[in-house]
Formats: sequence, structure tokens, C-alpha cells
Amino acid sequence: MTTQLTARPTGQMIIAGVPVAGTGTEVRGFNPATGETLEPAFHYGDESHVDAACAAAAEAFGPYRATTAEQRAQFLETVAAGIEAIKAELVARAVAESGLPEARITGEVGRTTGQLRLFAAVLREGSWNGARIDPAQPDRSPLPRPDIRQRAVPLGPVAVFGASNFPLAFSVAGGDTASALAAGCPVVVKAHDAHPGTSELVGAAITRAVAQTGMPAGTFSLLFGSGPGLGTALVTDPRIKAVGFTGSRYAGTALVAAAAARPEPIPVYAEMSAVNPVFLLEGALRARGAEIGTAFVGSLTMGSGQFCTNPGLVLAVDGPGLADFLTAAESALVGVAATPMLTPGIAAGYAKGVATLRAESTLVAQGRPADNETSCQAALFSADAQTFLASEALQAEVFGAASVLVRCADIDEMVRVAAALEGQLTATVHAEESDYGVAAKLLPVLELRAGRILFNGWPTGVEVGYAMVHGGPYPATSDARTTSVGARAIERFLRPVCYQDVPSALLPSAIADGNPDRIWRRVDGQLSRD
Amino acid sequence: MTTQLTARPTGQMIIAGVPVAGTGTEVRGFNPATGETLEPAFHYGDESHVDAACAAAAEAFGPYRATTAEQRAQFLETVAAGIEAIKAELVARAVAESGLPEARITGEVGRTTGQLRLFAAVLREGSWNGARIDPAQPDRSPLPRPDIRQRAVPLGPVAVFGASNFPLAFSVAGGDTASALAAGCPVVVKAHDAHPGTSELVGAAITRAVAQTGMPAGTFSLLFGSGPGLGTALVTDPRIKAVGFTGSRYAGTALVAAAAARPEPIPVYAEMSAVNPVFLLEGALRARGAEIGTAFVGSLTMGSGQFCTNPGLVLAVDGPGLADFLTAAESALVGVAATPMLTPGIAAGYAKGVATLRAESTLVAQGRPADNETSCQAALFSADAQTFLASEALQAEVFGAASVLVRCADIDEMVRVAAALEGQLTATVHAEESDYGVAAKLLPVLELRAGRILFNGWPTGVEVGYAMVHGGPYPATSDARTTSVGARAIERFLRPVCYQDVPSALLPSAIADGNPDRIWRRVDGQLSRD
Repeated sequence: MTTQLTARPTGQMIIAGVPVAGTGTEVRGFNPATGETLEPAFHYGDESHVDAACAAAAEAFGPYRATTAEQRAQFLETVAAGIEAIKAELVARAVAESGLPEARITGEVGRTTGQLRLFAAVLREGSWNGARIDPAQPDRSPLPRPDIRQRAVPLGPVAVFGASNFPLAFSVAGGDTASALAAGCPVVVKAHDAHPGTSELVGAAITRAVAQTGMPAGTFSLLFGSGPGLGTALVTDPRIKAVGFTGSRYAGTALVAAAAARPEPIPVYAEMSAVNPVFLLEGALRARGAEIGTAFVGSLTMGSGQFCTNPGLVLAVDGPGLADFLTAAESALVGVAATPMLTPGIAAGYAKGVATLRAESTLVAQGRPADNETSCQAALFSADAQTFLASEALQAEVFGAASVLVRCADIDEMVRVAAALEGQLTATVHAEESDYGVAAKLLPVLELRAGRILFNGWPTGVEVGYAMVHGGPYPATSDARTTSVGARAIERFLRPVCYQDVPSALLPSAIADGNPDRIWRRVDGQLSRD
Repeated sequence: MTTQLTARPTGQMIIAGVPVAGTGTEVRGFNPATGETLEPAFHYGDESHVDAACAAAAEAFGPYRATTAEQRAQFLETVAAGIEAIKAELVARAVAESGLPEARITGEVGRTTGQLRLFAAVLREGSWNGARIDPAQPDRSPLPRPDIRQRAVPLGPVAVFGASNFPLAFSVAGGDTASALAAGCPVVVKAHDAHPGTSELVGAAITRAVAQTGMPAGTFSLLFGSGPGLGTALVTDPRIKAVGFTGSRYAGTALVAAAAARPEPIPVYAEMSAVNPVFLLEGALRARGAEIGTAFVGSLTMGSGQFCTNPGLVLAVDGPGLADFLTAAESALVGVAATPMLTPGIAAGYAKGVATLRAESTLVAQGRPADNETSCQAALFSADAQTFLASEALQAEVFGAASVLVRCADIDEMVRVAAALEGQLTATVHAEESDYGVAAKLLPVLELRAGRILFNGWPTGVEVGYAMVHGGPYPATSDARTTSVGARAIERFLRPVCYQDVPSALLPSAIADGNPDRIWRRVDGQLSRD
């Protein structure tokens, strides 16, 4: 079987290493900056493609999970190298398909390859095994204690849904794919229609790495299709054992419902919706209100505001410092040029959301008007706390560069608004030392509302590291116990199994006698590397 | 407010420290061994009691989670001591309400207090915090790296459903309650109707410990009511943030559905249903077929077979060794006296299940007949692999001392049957060294089907330790990523939060500078206690 996988998109899906043309609805890359429709045409797959990809993934699962952590680490590194090898073409294509600036996309390539290498490091470090040993106590009375050992095993084939707003870092070889592959799970990706060419290029790089490192062909497949159609077929295929998704609340909750209705329900990790409140405390406003106002507009309008961590809500106590913030924010905002949004659909959704905000609150300032329908005119609105609390619309995410300033009468009201918020990916506090008393009141509330709390910075920008949490209570995600970014993302695709009196000859190396993998293990409750 | 909490049941619920009489359906303890109905009468609570308990739990949550790990450890130890202080009355009451032997109940008291003390140790060890620190890199280019720290916070008030078959270890102060309280979550228990007096006695012990250690009153409440009525009201109360349940598949899936349909869905940890396959390999049968047969009947009939880990399925390849197993099992089984089941309802369900097994397979042997309707006559059935695979009924759990022997034509057929099984709590292999080749084929299949794999033993009996997994793929549980027994059960009630550039003065101690708690933390990805 010969494969034709180049750095030029061919318009095909990839099923277990083989390019396959879809036969359904045509999709094409679309350049929102120029209005240009891109070559080649792609076509949606159908249920037969879902079946083929899932069958291949199920067949690959046994041998793939039997690879060593070192082998999977090398595989992930080979994927990273393969992406770097086509970087020029990839950046050009992703810029064309997203309308995002080249510097941003170049950074996203680095983030994507960095993520793959982080999981290679996680695999080698070995704690992901969750190795635990409670040695036998043959003389315990009244009953001897058996030998009990625990390690993690992968869940099985994983369905990953690419996101519109990160054509690389949250798409075909993004965090969901990297962490699932690290865990030992084959992956079937449904690409996002917004960047089919980018998706194919990255899918081809993964496919080459599969072949180069001798992984089973079914370890990776890439499909195109609609969410309600092919997406639902994928999530309800009995061979799929978990789902990673980044996108809208509407689509995410539909996948959660589909997964829950299966004869065997499966976990869905959907990162969905957030307004990412920013709390401006009095001392900070007084010390640097203008500076905060300018920086806020920078965070709000970056990438046309198309970040799940975009600061869509600002809370402050009415008072002297707030005027400086507002003056600076207004002055920055009116100079912001309209920038392209990812797709016409997203731009239409933004326009609708802004119209609703305008109806339910007061317009503070807007960016420069858009000269076409796919561009984003940034906007800041304002409401008092009572109005905000009474309005579902003001509390809902508007995807794009729109934000609402909520003016609170006092700190108690601000804390009440915080406590009334839905689950969030982030909560930001701007505070000087004089504000720490107030901040200490706010913190316990925010801990229960958000996955990440940050001080004196901006929520856009998510570090990929060991301590990051990109998650949070519903509806920020469908599973607050996890993160979709950073080292702990691998845990989403693992489950613990314990082995009682299993003969030494049959024990997996992570929990074998003598610790051959030289990893941290919990022995009788105590961490040890002996 | 004076409380009357003695070692004698009063027939009342407990809401935030205060005894409250229900006003609904009357329930009474019932001694299945004597047919005697016990004093006093209890009455179901209603939605007003759910509301009061949840309001108190929500109010308690803030101060309760602000306690130190050491304070919660002392609280759990005080609960354990309080249970021991009423041990004589408690054992007598639980024996009367369950019909289980005194030795078994005495053992269960020890298991319950041992669990509470295990979680005290887990709290003091500190790894439950999941502390991670990625220090700032102010000079990193192109962008400085912020300081990012991660720790776990509790989910919020937890609803716990007591189980019928473990009146202590999986009930009011059982593993779910102990692990939720350890995590910092207030608990509202719905007691099981099968042992109301036992539930009140234990609830009173927890209540006394709450007061003695200065925990907020709403940290614990105990309610009586039906599953579909009060149980559903509890799970759908917006202040409840997670659910622990041990019981039937029917009731468990109903709670899962109710939790998923909430405006804010919450995790449900339901441990539900398993047949716990036992694989008898050829060498083991040849070496000790008779011994295995006798021991099997011991495991099957212990506690009238009312264990979620009861060996309800035995698989063997037809051959010479199997005859020894069968002869010994038959001979042991015919001598087993009928023993009381926990409730008339469970006994009726068992009788119905046995009738179905009889209709779809061949009766091998039965225990001595029961002389009343609440006793369990143990039974072993047999079927060939094809018959078994074609019958849903033969694959379903019959709660009680019934098991099905599946005769496989060869090892490949045995592996195929294993692969076709639903998710299980346990899978057992009896193997001699000559069987290791076959066992190595079976193991990867079993790892994907069960939470615990054990060799040359019996699944009844679940060690409470650091490495135990009492869990498994659906429908064994509703969440295969967790365990309801052992140290890791605490993780079910925690979620990670990360702190970015949060000022030192405001950081929780688990992630503070200088590691004041002296706990293991992951710094830049490496474990450290510095």
C-alpha cells in the first residue's frame, strides 16, 4: 500500500495510514482575511469511515498500549520533529485558513511541538503509572494480607474534536491527542471545518511518525464531518472509550449527552465556555488604573478575542480609581482595528452576541468599525451588579472581543456577584498589597468557581507545564476534575487497575519487583524510588 | 439546643447535629434471622429535610474546608473512637438488622474504624493536595514564565447512599463518607432502609465527633427516605456537588441519570454490579481442582453471597481437572445451610434470579433448602460458552450465592468469553506455573474488563490500603477512573486549581514558599519534599 502524504494538502482523510477521500458535503479552507476560498476541496466522511477508523483503532489498541513508555515518548518526539519539518508550509496554510497573524501561528507551532515533548518527558518520568505496592503481610492476624499492586492502564481508543480557534495546539496534534497517545490510547480525530488543510498536514505528520516508529497503523486516523453527524457517530461507536473536545457549550453538551446515553457511557472532556472574570481591586485601580485599562484592551482584542480565556467580564467597585481604568480602556479600544474572525459563522455569532449585550447594558466604547462581515469590532459594555445578576445574557459567553464591566456598590456586592457566577476557566485579580484583605475574602469564592486563579496578569495565554490547570467547574468544562493543558492531561485517559497476588513473572514492569523502570512508586503509602 | 444521642436508636434523623423526626413512610429494622420487627419506628423525611440538610452542608462547607488536614484527621479519628465506644450496642443492633453473623459484623466495625484512620493517615501524609509548583522564569524568551502552582480543593457537599450489604463499612461512616470528609466535603447520608438503627447509632457517633472537634454542625447529616423520592431530591439539590453510592445497577443508573440532567451536572461514583469471573486454568485444576472447588463454595456462600465481589461466574476449559473441581464443589455445596438474606426484597430478587438461571442453564448442585422465604439456598449452574454468550440473563448479576460455570472448548474460547464480558469489579485467575503462558494471554483482556485482578485467591474480601482498586469499567461502576475503597477514594471528591502569580501572602500552605506543610510536591515536574 503506497501513501501519498506531502506537505501539500490533498483533500483526503487518513484512516490508519491510508488517505481516503470523503464522499459527502464539500468543505474548503477559507481565508477570512481575504475572503478567498482555498484549494483543495475536502469532503465529509460517513459512518463507514467512522467504522473503519474505529475498527483500526480497536485493533491497534492492544499492541499500541503494549509499547514501552520510552517507545511512545520517541513516537511523540517524532511527531514533533515531523511538524517542524513542514513548519513553513504549515504556518502558511494555518495563517491562510485562520486569518490569524503569522507570529501567533508560529508561536502555536512551538506550543504544539512543546506539548508533544512535554508528554514524552512525562512518559519517561513515570509517575503517570500511578504505581503503588502494598506488600504482603503473611503473618497478619486474623487474616494474612495479600500482595496488592496498582498501576494505570489506558482507557482505549479516544475521539478528539479539533477546535476552531487553535488550528494546531487544540487540534489534530494538540493537547488532547498528545495526552491520549501518551497514555497508550489510539486517537481518531474529527478535524474542524475551519482548517481542513492544516488538519491534513498535521495528520500526515502524525501518520509518518506512526510508520517511522513502528506503531500500529490504527494508532491514528483523521476524519472530516459534521458534529451532529460524523461526530455523534464517533462518540457513540462502542470502540471509542473517551472523548476530548474544545469548542462551544452547545456542541460540547450534545457530545456529553450522546456519550452518557451509550449502553456503556464514557467520559467526555469538553472544554466549553467561560467569561473569565477580572476583579479590579481598589488599591490596584488607584495605583495603576490606566495601565490596567490599556493592558486589558490588549488581552481582550488579541486574536479577535477568540480565546476560551478571553476576559469577557470585569468587576470593580465604583470609585475614584475606576475612572482611570475606563479612560485608558476607552482610549485604547477606539484605536483597535477590526480584525478577521475565524469563520463567517463565528463572526455572525459575535455580532448577535454584541447586539444582545447592547440591549441589556450600556455601551462604553467600541473599536474601529469592521469593513466586512467576518471582522470583529471590539466592544466594552457596562452594567451595575443588580442588572448583571438579573440578566442571563450578560453572564453568557460572547465568543470574540466583547466584555462587560460590572460596577459593584461595594466589596460585599462584588463577592456576591463572584459567588453567583457559573464555573470558569480562569478568574483574575488585580491587587496591590493594600488589597490583600479583600483578595483573601475573594479567593475562597474563586477557588470554587475557576480552574485557574491569576493575579496582576491576564488570562489569555496558558502555560504548558506541570502545574497548569486549564479546566474548571461546569460549564467551563464537563469534568472539573481534570485539565486539558499541561502534564496532568494524560490522567484523563488512564484508569487504575490493581493486581492481587499476581505472580512476579506476570507483573507489568511499572509494579514489578526491584523497580526495573526506576520510577517513583508508593510502597505501603510512602513514595519511594527504590 | 440539647441533643439526645445515645447508643440506643431513637428513630430520628440527624440534621446538622439536631435529631429530627421524619413524618413520612414508617421504616423499621427487621431481623431476617428471626423474622422479628425491631423498635423504634423510623419515618422517611421529605424535601424540607433535604433542603435543611443541604443548606446546613453548604453553610458548613466554607469553614469545614478551611480546617487543616491535621484537624480533619483528628475529627476522623474521633469518629473512629466514637464508634468503638458504642461497639457492643452497635454490633448487636447491626447483627439484628442484617442477620449477618456477629463475627462478620465485628470485623466490619474494625474495617470501618480502620478506614477512618487510613484517611487520617492520608491527610497527614499530604500527597492528596496534589501540590505542584512551576517556578517563574522571568528571563525566559520570548515571554517570561509566570509562577504557577497547583493544589486540590474539595468539590463541595457530598451525598452518600448507604448500602444494604455492609451496614457499617459501606454505609453511614463507610468509605464514601470517610473519604469525602477527609477531602473537606460535608456529607449528607441517605441511610439504607435495611438497617435504620445501625445508621442512627453511627450517625450519632459522627455527630458527637463533629461537636467534640469543633467542626461546623452542617458537616454531617443523616436522612431516611426512598431512593426515587428523597434520594433523587438529594442528588438534584444544587448544593450537592458529588454522589457516592453502592447498590444495584438499577438504582445506580437512575442516580447517574438524575445527576447528569441537573443544570450543573455532577459526578456520581456508583458501585453497582458485577459477576466477578473466576478463571480456572488447566494446571491449577490438575494440581488442586478439589481444593479450589471447596474454597470456591466458601467464597460463594459467605454472607449468603451478598457481596459485590461474589464469584458469580466460573470459567474453565473442559478437561480432566474440571471433574475434581466439580465433585468437590458439589459435595461442599450440598452441605451448605440456607442462611438469611438482608431483606425480604433481596431474597425475592435472589429467588427470581435463580429461577432465570435454572431456565437458561443446567443446575449442578444446590445448598440445603431454605425453611423460610428470606433465606438463601446457594446454587451452582453450568452452561457451555456458546449458551452463555447468547444469554443476557446468564451474564447478569444475581445478588446472592448463585454462580454459573461456563465450560469452554479451549483457551481461545475462554479468552473470547472474557473479552465479551461487561466491566467487572474483579477477575480471578487460578494458575500454576505451567499456566503462565495462558495467563499472560488472559491478563491484557482482564485489565480492560476489571478493576482488580487476583491470582489463586477469591474476590470476596477487599483490603483497605493504599494500592486497592475497588472499581472497574461500567457497569461495575459509573466511573472506572476511581476506587471506592482505599486511599485513592479521596481523589473522587477533589479537583485541581492552579494559582498563577498569586502573592506569597495569599498562597495556601500546601503550595506556599518553603513548603511549611513538609509534603511531597512536584517542582518543575520533579517530586521533592524540600
